[in-house]
Amino acid sequence: MHAYRTHTCGALREADVGATVRLSGWVHRKRDHGGVLFIDLRDHYGISQVVAKADSEALHVLEGLRLESVVTIDGTVVARGPEATNPKMETGAIEIVADSVTVLSTAAELPLPVAGEQDYPEDIRLRYRFLDLRRETLHGNIVKRTKIISDMRRRMEDAGFTEYSTPILTASSPEGARDFLVPSRIHAGKFYALPQAPQQYKQLLMVAGFDRYFQIAPCFRDEDPRADRLPGEFYQLDLEMSFVTQEEVWDTMEPVIAQIFEKFADGKPVTPAGSFRRIPHAEALLKYGSDKPDLRNPIEITDVTEHFAGSGFGIFASLVDSGSVIRAIPAPGAGAGSRKFFDEMNNWARGEGYSGLGYINIKDGVPGGPIAKNHGEEATAKLIAALGLGANDGVFFAAGKESQAAKLAGLARTRVGETLDLIDKDRFDLCWIVDFPFYEYDEDTKSVDFAHNPFSMPQGGLDALNNQDPLTINAYQYDMVCNGFEIASGSIRNQSPELMVKAFELVGLSQQDVEERFGGLYRAFQYGAPPHGGMAAGVDRIVMLLCGAQNLREITLFPMNQRAEDLLMGAPSAAEFKQLRELHVRVVEPQAKG
Amino acid sequence: MHAYRTHTCGALREADVGATVRLSGWVHRKRDHGGVLFIDLRDHYGISQVVAKADSEALHVLEGLRLESVVTIDGTVVARGPEATNPKMETGAIEIVADSVTVLSTAAELPLPVAGEQDYPEDIRLRYRFLDLRRETLHGNIVKRTKIISDMRRRMEDAGFTEYSTPILTASSPEGARDFLVPSRIHAGKFYALPQAPQQYKQLLMVAGFDRYFQIAPCFRDEDPRADRLPGEFYQLDLEMSFVTQEEVWDTMEPVIAQIFEKFADGKPVTPAGSFRRIPHAEALLKYGSDKPDLRNPIEITDVTEHFAGSGFGIFASLVDSGSVIRAIPAPGAGAGSRKFFDEMNNWARGEGYSGLGYINIKDGVPGGPIAKNHGEEATAKLIAALGLGANDGVFFAAGKESQAAKLAGLARTRVGETLDLIDKDRFDLCWIVDFPFYEYDEDTKSVDFAHNPFSMPQGGLDALNNQDPLTINAYQYDMVCNGFEIASGSIRNQSPELMVKAFELVGLSQQDVEERFGGLYRAFQYGAPPHGGMAAGVDRIVMLLCGAQNLREITLFPMNQRAEDLLMGAPSAAEFKQLRELHVRVVEPQAKG
Repeated sequence: MHAYRTHTCGALREADVGATVRLSGWVHRKRDHGGVLFIDLRDHYGISQVVAKADSEALHVLEGLRLESVVTIDGTVVARGPEATNPKMETGAIEIVADSVTVLSTAAELPLPVAGEQDYPEDIRLRYRFLDLRRETLHGNIVKRTKIISDMRRRMEDAGFTEYSTPILTASSPEGARDFLVPSRIHAGKFYALPQAPQQYKQLLMVAGFDRYFQIAPCFRDEDPRADRLPGEFYQLDLEMSFVTQEEVWDTMEPVIAQIFEKFADGKPVTPAGSFRRIPHAEALLKYGSDKPDLRNPIEITDVTEHFAGSGFGIFASLVDSGSVIRAIPAPGAGAGSRKFFDEMNNWARGEGYSGLGYINIKDGVPGGPIAKNHGEEATAKLIAALGLGANDGVFFAAGKESQAAKLAGLARTRVGETLDLIDKDRFDLCWIVDFPFYEYDEDTKSVDFAHNPFSMPQGGLDALNNQDPLTINAYQYDMVCNGFEIASGSIRNQSPELMVKAFELVGLSQQDVEERFGGLYRAFQYGAPPHGGMAAGVDRIVMLLCGAQNLREITLFPMNQRAEDLLMGAPSAAEFKQLRELHVRVVEPQAKG
Repeated sequence: MHAYRTHTCGALREADVGATVRLSGWVHRKRDHGGVLFIDLRDHYGISQVVAKADSEALHVLEGLRLESVVTIDGTVVARGPEATNPKMETGAIEIVADSVTVLSTAAELPLPVAGEQDYPEDIRLRYRFLDLRRETLHGNIVKRTKIISDMRRRMEDAGFTEYSTPILTASSPEGARDFLVPSRIHAGKFYALPQAPQQYKQLLMVAGFDRYFQIAPCFRDEDPRADRLPGEFYQLDLEMSFVTQEEVWDTMEPVIAQIFEKFADGKPVTPAGSFRRIPHAEALLKYGSDKPDLRNPIEITDVTEHFAGSGFGIFASLVDSGSVIRAIPAPGAGAGSRKFFDEMNNWARGEGYSGLGYINIKDGVPGGPIAKNHGEEATAKLIAALGLGANDGVFFAAGKESQAAKLAGLARTRVGETLDLIDKDRFDLCWIVDFPFYEYDEDTKSVDFAHNPFSMPQGGLDALNNQDPLTINAYQYDMVCNGFEIASGSIRNQSPELMVKAFELVGLSQQDVEERFGGLYRAFQYGAPPHGGMAAGVDRIVMLLCGAQNLREITLFPMNQRAEDLLMGAPSAAEFKQLRELHVRVVEPQAKG
């Protein structure tokens, strides 16, 4: 007989009744029923009920053990009988009558209970992560995460991609975030950087003639804590293809992502592959006030600037005169309710730093509120008709400079959708946002900068770079969005050295700067570079969506806390002087602020 | 039509004759046949021959292009005819008559040719790795590597394992090598370490109740250059199992590894799963003079100490008297040849710093050489019979302290096998080496230290630790060896806090030291730890064996050079002062040696 088990704790069924078995696992729960002890014995695969009869040796051993001790049980499988069967457990029709118990490991008093999953302070959960990970929800999330990643790999291979691992000790990469640095022992005063993304390496792979690359890639950014990013490392499904247009990237990846969602969505509807909407960036900003629209929210924003231009409604007319835009955000059915909702929305907008949200509330076909009053009956009726509003709808108005108004309208759209409960939470709505602007105006530096990825191909090529207002140039650049979250981002790359130099020139960088910062890639483009493009999807975000988790720590095995500390292993920690001397660095203590 | 290609360069066959096609790829070779230009057009998938007819527009464009430029060819597939068919190429029965050529990227003069694969200096190959990677052998090795890793993953999943990624920014791990350190920005004066191996994390996963873990794990050791290890990172197939004995680990992993070898061995024989020999460490040292024996070498070493004890052969007898051992290394068939071989072996041993290799050469049944002469006819005949030597065999003798003699015998065994061409190079011989000693005596520190993994379970448990000479205690520790290389190493772990403290006490470390150095693991063992064990296989070594590569850089995508530099990306490099200030470190320039 096996030293530890003939079956796992999730394996036994009614057909096994009468078998002599050996199980090993953790003591999950104990229940004393008048001298008879019932044990829930747990392992990775499930839970089996063990019975230790009154006055038995097994009972004697088990009753003195703390929960979470590890034991081996030798016993016989018996049927529970209909009245005691637990239909919720896969092993619920049987139990094991214990003949003997071997204690493999005793548990000390637990700092954190495993059964029951009570809420516990995060620092205790992280310090005792090995206990936290035994809890059902987190254990299940982690297993689901690994299954999703495994499934990604298979689907990518089935789509003709090959997984290549790119270096982790490498040079600084220009992703815009702070690098983690690693001092070199052999080269005094020099440092490696951990990759923020394998961007340059994957492009080099294309130049090296590998056609379809992917990688479940660890990425590292030394950024300040953010709700949606853990300190330290995160994972991307990174991919790149040669000889492709952006349409081919979309057509290739849409089925992969849609099918991953379908497989792990627990039956919730997912936008089918082939039907992802491709929404231009400008349209997304207009209709949804966001480049990450939640399409589960049925509300669409309309630009009503023209309507108010030169209208009798003084405030809006003069705003339009001075270059502002007006956006209308419908609130379906809200007119039937109280005015309180409208006033609260207005107060919320003011609280967010905007000048407020005007509104019209229509009750039984009669428009109400100050805007309706000031705008006049006829004009209001025309506006309501143009917006297609019903007899008991409401509508909000966001006014201001275009980017401000769009943002406020987007926030209001989300808030109206949530407040009126218009968003179907049990659905995954996927779409592409395309035609991102290549450049943007940086208000801080008062200069033109890359809006997103400097390695993207500008639409219109060299001609556009030479002759067009940079702020009107779009890139072959796209995001994939799900339920209001960006889950992937990509582009067709600029593989022409000439175009690359010109593109950087427009943000004030010389050819020499390009050669110094991206020398490997720039050099590679001189020797026959294929057209190529790709994208990177956020593994952690996709797993969070599919697990319904609100926090990255609920889907991460050994996360750091928000102070970037690993409380379990005690990282970061002080280094020995000898180590630092070998690495040619010395610690500089922060100076007290004077 | 697709913007770049209707087919890849490896796809077209005779059945496609007459089709209008578009191909894109690199200009691999050009041949001018009297005004007609033949182009080998290459992509990741293969090569197709393109013909540009005399005076055609296509010819005009192509003849001015340098090799490795990237082009799109529009043309028609034609049959080559029997006389021009190239049976070595999959596309050898057809060629494409070019109608038009679009240049996608022109190549500058190449620092390194792609076609032909001439030998080139390594620094140029690394600096222009994107060109080097286009070359057939390296490109093929890299693809094979990715296929092997993908196959490993599938087999591990099929064997019930789940892949978990463990943290890369973590705490220092006690693998005995130097850590790479990463300064923390948030915690001044503190450092993360990159993992030398995920040893503690995988054990924590077992304690957390995940049953069968594996990971294709990046590992980092800041070691000085070694022939068999690249600077920086390397990959392990890392795995761990709960509730197992070492036999179960072997029985689980033997099929996985054997089948990977079979799949990628190009038809070479592989030791079948289920028949790997399990050789105790002590036996390996005796029979093969190595714990990494090459079993393709048929020579087995015999201990002949007893034979010479008190014998008439003065030198060996007195050596044995003073505690030395004598090992016999047969040289099958060598007696028929000249004495030169024997003398050269002896000289080689002296060159290696040993006192020499005695020998007997038997020619037509007559033993020759000084040992035969001094040892006497009868004793020599008895020895020859005991060793089972034939009428034209030879035998060498290695004498000295046990470890010295074993080592010399092992080296001589390899040299004899190679010189006499006894080793079948086209075979993969796999075995387990088991029962490694737990402790060893460190001659430098004059103290007992762990021989291998301090987390291994000592055979005999607490009783052995309390009552046995530490140097006689074996561990449940094992290696997998192929053709003279260690390809995997593992053990059953010590999961008892009491045993762990005792095991460390014997190397002079206190309970407090254990808690400080391995606090996460030691703490975890207090709360219910299952018996567990596993191993880690060297992915790079396995790939090297299966590719027949002699150098790790021939199977690595973007390797660093032996000075730990990435010549392509320019790493390591100087950091900006601002970065270092944020990280609270300052560079200390090495002082000139006075």
